[in-house]
Amino acid sequence: MIKKLSLGEMEQLCSELRSYIIEVVYGTGGHLASSLGTVELCVALHRVFSTPDDKIVFDVGHQAYAHKIITGRYKDFRRLRTENGISGFPRPDESLHDAFIAGHASTSISAALGIAKAMEIKGEKNYVISVIGDGALTGGEAYEGLNNASKLKRNFIVILNDNEMSISKNSGAVASYLSQMRSSTKYYETKKRVKDALSKSAIGRELSKSVSGTKELVKFAIFQSNIFENLGYKYLGPIDGNDLAETIDTLNVAKQLQEPCIIHIKTKKGKGYLPAEQNSGEYHGLSKRQAIVKCTEKKESYSEIAGKYLLELADKDERICGVTAAMKYATGLQFFAKKYKSRFFDVGIAEEHAVTFAGGLASQGMIPVFCVYSTFLQRCYDQILHDLAIEGEHAVLAIDRAGFVGEDGETHQGLFDVSMLSSIPGIEIFSPSNESELKSSFYKAFYKCKGIAAVRYPKGDAVMGYSADNDYYLKHCKNNGKALIITYGRISRYAFEAAEKTDADVLQMVKIFPIVEKSVEIAEKYKKIVFFEEGIQSGGIGEKFGMELLKSGWRGKYEIKAVFNKFVSYSDTDKQLAEYELDKNGIIKIMGEIIGEN
Amino acid sequence: MIKKLSLGEMEQLCSELRSYIIEVVYGTGGHLASSLGTVELCVALHRVFSTPDDKIVFDVGHQAYAHKIITGRYKDFRRLRTENGISGFPRPDESLHDAFIAGHASTSISAALGIAKAMEIKGEKNYVISVIGDGALTGGEAYEGLNNASKLKRNFIVILNDNEMSISKNSGAVASYLSQMRSSTKYYETKKRVKDALSKSAIGRELSKSVSGTKELVKFAIFQSNIFENLGYKYLGPIDGNDLAETIDTLNVAKQLQEPCIIHIKTKKGKGYLPAEQNSGEYHGLSKRQAIVKCTEKKESYSEIAGKYLLELADKDERICGVTAAMKYATGLQFFAKKYKSRFFDVGIAEEHAVTFAGGLASQGMIPVFCVYSTFLQRCYDQILHDLAIEGEHAVLAIDRAGFVGEDGETHQGLFDVSMLSSIPGIEIFSPSNESELKSSFYKAFYKCKGIAAVRYPKGDAVMGYSADNDYYLKHCKNNGKALIITYGRISRYAFEAAEKTDADVLQMVKIFPIVEKSVEIAEKYKKIVFFEEGIQSGGIGEKFGMELLKSGWRGKYEIKAVFNKFVSYSDTDKQLAEYELDKNGIIKIMGEIIGEN
Repeated sequence: MIKKLSLGEMEQLCSELRSYIIEVVYGTGGHLASSLGTVELCVALHRVFSTPDDKIVFDVGHQAYAHKIITGRYKDFRRLRTENGISGFPRPDESLHDAFIAGHASTSISAALGIAKAMEIKGEKNYVISVIGDGALTGGEAYEGLNNASKLKRNFIVILNDNEMSISKNSGAVASYLSQMRSSTKYYETKKRVKDALSKSAIGRELSKSVSGTKELVKFAIFQSNIFENLGYKYLGPIDGNDLAETIDTLNVAKQLQEPCIIHIKTKKGKGYLPAEQNSGEYHGLSKRQAIVKCTEKKESYSEIAGKYLLELADKDERICGVTAAMKYATGLQFFAKKYKSRFFDVGIAEEHAVTFAGGLASQGMIPVFCVYSTFLQRCYDQILHDLAIEGEHAVLAIDRAGFVGEDGETHQGLFDVSMLSSIPGIEIFSPSNESELKSSFYKAFYKCKGIAAVRYPKGDAVMGYSADNDYYLKHCKNNGKALIITYGRISRYAFEAAEKTDADVLQMVKIFPIVEKSVEIAEKYKKIVFFEEGIQSGGIGEKFGMELLKSGWRGKYEIKAVFNKFVSYSDTDKQLAEYELDKNGIIKIMGEIIGEN
Repeated sequence: MIKKLSLGEMEQLCSELRSYIIEVVYGTGGHLASSLGTVELCVALHRVFSTPDDKIVFDVGHQAYAHKIITGRYKDFRRLRTENGISGFPRPDESLHDAFIAGHASTSISAALGIAKAMEIKGEKNYVISVIGDGALTGGEAYEGLNNASKLKRNFIVILNDNEMSISKNSGAVASYLSQMRSSTKYYETKKRVKDALSKSAIGRELSKSVSGTKELVKFAIFQSNIFENLGYKYLGPIDGNDLAETIDTLNVAKQLQEPCIIHIKTKKGKGYLPAEQNSGEYHGLSKRQAIVKCTEKKESYSEIAGKYLLELADKDERICGVTAAMKYATGLQFFAKKYKSRFFDVGIAEEHAVTFAGGLASQGMIPVFCVYSTFLQRCYDQILHDLAIEGEHAVLAIDRAGFVGEDGETHQGLFDVSMLSSIPGIEIFSPSNESELKSSFYKAFYKCKGIAAVRYPKGDAVMGYSADNDYYLKHCKNNGKALIITYGRISRYAFEAAEKTDADVLQMVKIFPIVEKSVEIAEKYKKIVFFEEGIQSGGIGEKFGMELLKSGWRGKYEIKAVFNKFVSYSDTDKQLAEYELDKNGIIKIMGEIIGEN
């Protein structure tokens, strides 16, 4: 359809797409700023290439909203990030036009290369395009992909969408380098002019004659002077990616090449919507509630409380260093960053580096705290094990977004960290259920633990509550408990509420691993136990607690309610809790059943 | 001590170090080729810098043998990689002169940066040097480290030890680029000459005048024409790293700089020992047995059998693609690589990319098999989950070196893969105990499984045996079994041997996850069960099997013998099995005790 439009009509389409995205995202929540920046790019891509035969692999995929709308999902887009609606990220099982799943950064070049190689093997000639933001380019896997794709002898297009920041402000060598390139004029045109001038003019010839022995070098320096060209890519750019005609022209040039090519486009995050243009960090992602109640007073999230408390600790302890992988605001570290510039490190989207770097800090007596989403912590399992645990370095992992994350979907669920971390020798894990437990857990992590200490907490607003002095808390119901609920983290409050309605006692764990011996002794007194866990069952605490009971010779009925062997799609967090019977009603139902049994 | 030697004396020292390394490694096994290449570098480093105040962070650490010998471990080096002897890798708890642990590649720049930042915070002025091979430079974390270190305002030296290969032959853009630089003359001298020539001569002035509008560009191109300089590093090199005087001179220059700097040194792997110079791939690492019995006939290892069988499958199935991360020989893929060049991919030391790349292949109908050591698989937990599992791609993981690895020590143990992988929804895991089970497991992985299928097998020579047609195998002892041994993988044979001596039956699992229901039904008939597992207990199959028993209402005595909450140091594999009571004697002892109990 787009292929038949005039330039004017396409520009009109861009403008309509932009309005529609703003309208929908304000209702449903989602990634506003980056989606608005790439409207022209998406239209240009569909003008020049033909999906699903040609494959466009979006990195992270925040950038893909316009692509979704123009590939048959206009209507469904209204149900963005809602159950049975449209995912916030590309998903091949949602549409043939989505070439590969994308939720975590820096994967697109690797996936696109796999697709291209498969096409080569099968003798197919279609195009493969990877679209990667400058933020995602700070991740090591992107570099591994570039390193491997450069020797292709076929068309392979990497579009570097440079909007001068990843999620928070980008830093590091590559960012500086891009900014240097950005400020130059059109690089490839200029270079062509130099080349022409040198070969045609006497000066060029003179140069190579006069500077003895350096001819090769000068040639090398002038004609391969850009990182991407050094790596073997044809480089086109920088171009204005919000200029539709220029973008289409450049894509058409790239389409002709029989080699790997990088198109460097500059786009404006939040383009066309002033508040988002001016503060794209704030508008990076809008959660649904934020979108609806933007003007009402905000409660404090766990992230904010964590960030402020870490600052409070850092005030008193000069050894504490804050580390984040491009999540300064999202993890509440902005307060820390502002006050202790020299002890704060935003390393870009580079979780592996972040952990090994923290290991280096720790080896010199610092106490690093790495603030990271549960889902992104998956990136650095090996580094936690190899660079922190083996030498017994003391470091704190502040794990945000642990548990269900609602609308972000299966790529972002914080359901695996407990299973992953508890295999690591020497680690201690805390999962507080409220604000005061969050603080006391952090305090213990810094000052009572010796090796790696992890504190994990959910997305969303914090609830207040008592602070369990112990690592666990037992609550008796009004009668003598006929069964025991064991649980931890956010869902503890539902367990307490459910206990009121049933004849069950509740054992809430705050330090969840290693399992506190005393808590097993308590549990042994019950004949019926259900372990409720907001996480994957396999390798979770429910299994380990069961094992302790089995070993101790306990004989009774034991069940685990957790996420079993599946990925959890996007939906409302409350609905997700309900689906897995981890909310108040679910717990009441399960406990009713088990207590009713003989 | 080295600081007082003359150049001649130091050269003599190098020669003695070289002889000593060859002598010792032939007895104990170890990494020969890379250690021989870096003798001069290690001596030069200790001439110019002063450990332990200055910190030398070796990447991987194969390169550090000479460093170990000259930092007070001359005598102990004779017990390289033996129990209570010297580790094959740097270990801070072995010597103050080892700045950071190193076993997995590409971590040194990140760790060194952490150390440098900690020094900065504490106001210390010592030097930090990272030594990284060109192979390790193919890993994304190295790039993340470079990206973050470039803005330091202090001395920070990265030594790029370029021996033209990682473990097997290096490939990719960076390798080509380095080779281009290597073949140039001394780059920094040449560049200086160009610069002088341009600024002094009329031609240089002419050039900037005549080529209108491009002055900035030409300056940029000539004076920042190298990838590392583009990334903000001062670049020195390439120099001959086996020339002691030149290396010392260059280190002294680097020491003066108040900014990050890369020294590009060329060294010869295996330098000074002809067989290793000529075939450094073969001499990369010698295992102890290989070292001692080099001339006797070799049995086939699991790696070789796997490699040949994969080739056999690929002969009949054009969809099968082989992927490795710089482990072509080590995982037996050389046969595959030779015959099916277009379906074989060595991506460099880049496990993350390897998995996502495999996901791309699978998305187009190929069946990729990623051949990787268990310990390095830890690098790509997130990619397995995010880029293979969520979309349900069909891919095979061929996991070599699963279980104890003997002399390589705690950084290389293959004890975590089962725990890590079994948290991933939809995965199926096989752990064969002999050659024929290895083949049948691979066959099932390719043709009976739909999603991710992992086949794991140990280091060392394969044993022959029957092939269990089922996913498990029950062996009754001569009497009626008074207890049940459950186990899987290599130690199954010890269990069978032990069963002969005790009154225990053996349930051997071949498909270990998800647990086959029927095997739980079999186990339920016993009152006493011990699960023997060559892996970490937390999250392992022993816990999961126990959980199944508990849920089913089984009441009996259940124990797990596995590695519990600790790292396993270097030693002989047989000793490691004995220490954890996973060998024949251990199993006899444990079963005797439990059967004797009331």
